[in-house]
Amino acid sequence: MSRIGINTNMKNVLVTSGSQQAIDLSGRLFINGGDTIICESPTYLAAINTFKTYNAKFVEVDMDDEGMIMEELEKKLIENPNTKFIYTIPDFQNPTGRTLKLERRKRMVELANQYNVLIVEDNPYGAIRFSGNELPPVKHFDTEGRVIYISTFSKMLTPGLRLGWICADEVFIEKYVAFKQTADLHTDSFAQRMTAKYLELYDIEEHINKIKAVYKERCKVMLSCLEEFFPKRLSYSKPEGGLFIWVELPEDVSAEHIFTEGLKNNVACVPGTPFFPNRATKNALRLNYSNMAKEKIIEGIKLLGEVYYTVN
Amino acid sequence: MSRIGINTNMKNVLVTSGSQQAIDLSGRLFINGGDTIICESPTYLAAINTFKTYNAKFVEVDMDDEGMIMEELEKKLIENPNTKFIYTIPDFQNPTGRTLKLERRKRMVELANQYNVLIVEDNPYGAIRFSGNELPPVKHFDTEGRVIYISTFSKMLTPGLRLGWICADEVFIEKYVAFKQTADLHTDSFAQRMTAKYLELYDIEEHINKIKAVYKERCKVMLSCLEEFFPKRLSYSKPEGGLFIWVELPEDVSAEHIFTEGLKNNVACVPGTPFFPNRATKNALRLNYSNMAKEKIIEGIKLLGEVYYTVN
Repeated sequence: MSRIGINTNMKNVLVTSGSQQAIDLSGRLFINGGDTIICESPTYLAAINTFKTYNAKFVEVDMDDEGMIMEELEKKLIENPNTKFIYTIPDFQNPTGRTLKLERRKRMVELANQYNVLIVEDNPYGAIRFSGNELPPVKHFDTEGRVIYISTFSKMLTPGLRLGWICADEVFIEKYVAFKQTADLHTDSFAQRMTAKYLELYDIEEHINKIKAVYKERCKVMLSCLEEFFPKRLSYSKPEGGLFIWVELPEDVSAEHIFTEGLKNNVACVPGTPFFPNRATKNALRLNYSNMAKEKIIEGIKLLGEVYYTVN
Repeated sequence: MSRIGINTNMKNVLVTSGSQQAIDLSGRLFINGGDTIICESPTYLAAINTFKTYNAKFVEVDMDDEGMIMEELEKKLIENPNTKFIYTIPDFQNPTGRTLKLERRKRMVELANQYNVLIVEDNPYGAIRFSGNELPPVKHFDTEGRVIYISTFSKMLTPGLRLGWICADEVFIEKYVAFKQTADLHTDSFAQRMTAKYLELYDIEEHINKIKAVYKERCKVMLSCLEEFFPKRLSYSKPEGGLFIWVELPEDVSAEHIFTEGLKNNVACVPGTPFFPNRATKNALRLNYSNMAKEKIIEGIKLLGEVYYTVN
């Protein structure tokens, strides 16, 4: 963790059953019914669903290509004094693939200090940067112990082991531990030992570099397919890492229709709607380039492009 | 599961991250703040702590050597119309080691039907019966889909893998699945595959028989040590399986003191207090015979007996 600019010790880290559990425990620990969570618009759908089970109210902040817009964030903080925390995915965000730029990371912490809120930084993709310069996590700029940093081995090693962690001030970790015990007693010890042994025997950076090379190529292929098989006026993100491209279709195009027709032909994408906690945005699509070979990506995007043109 | 008298299929079972998660998800699914949970007195402390996080109110029902007393249960059901479910550990209960007798299992289901409540049957120890006759689970008598059956591989294979399950009516399982997804997405696939492979390659019944033989012997040794090193008037359970013996000390003896002095000499037991959600019962001890060799058990109980006599 020191590599990415966070100091850790035995007392400020808790191993969780995947970062999903870390998100859930954060909801359990911090949200009282009616509390406001401020998040990027759009944001990770399973975080939305989780925080909703704790009866959170969501306030969405607009993003541009450089992540959450800080002027908008401040406006929402002023408008919502009942805000408990800002939920952010700063690196290669799910679903947009966008990255919060450096100055905004510093500014987000300043605003959290000023408006007395916490930040839950969900960072599962940060290690998978395949272009551009590495950025320190938001937690790196934390001066008052307000940032809860969440990450996972899911994207850099394997998701099946359910191995994530929370890094936060000791006072929070103590409470997280109590909730963790009621949730599942502890995280699979075999998964923890296997991963520890892996880290001892192998160079995980070398493994991550392999992943990066693969994803970089697949992302490039998918972007050039979007260029080729979709109209020029289409707007989509150009990720520097992670797994996702976010496509904003013209307003009158239904992502749901593209999704349904794609699926009939065995091509899966995710319509944007569930990534917005409040808005009904029907014209966005999340594409994932991480799991398919180049040829399949070409075939898939070509097909989605054909579907697009049949309805336009 | 058919072996123990429960019919299962793909739609009425959910794999969980240990049975602790099944307990937690039950709290999340069923308890609204202020709801009453009826439980054995005493009961499993981590279930108490979990249900408390959902702001449950506890009503304790007295037990005798044959488990929860059904006349008492009915009284409490009448007194507490806001009861959501009966939480019971029918086999070799934690902490008492006691087992709910057959007629009471049938009666518990009848009462649940009559008073329109659910039963959460927590059965982690049922497979570890080393004497007496096997009993069907409470779920076996379920006529209206009111029993949520929870179990785990923890006690018959290994606790470290965190592999438990819920068996309940499909309508409940669908809701459990939604909550499970927010809690940790899914249970460690490696642990699931390993266990499936184990079940394919080995005879788990043979393994369980080995455990039973070991526990039977250790339980016998511990009981005879209690006979030898403690006064005759002491009351304690004589388990037919599982891991625990429950010792009821004379009213003026502090279990906490025995615990503290024991620990100084490296002998661990658990004072009874945290197993009672409401009462402050200071004179009970939970002993666990499962993990120590015969010689260590003799040494340990002898020492606890010496501590007992120094304060009496």
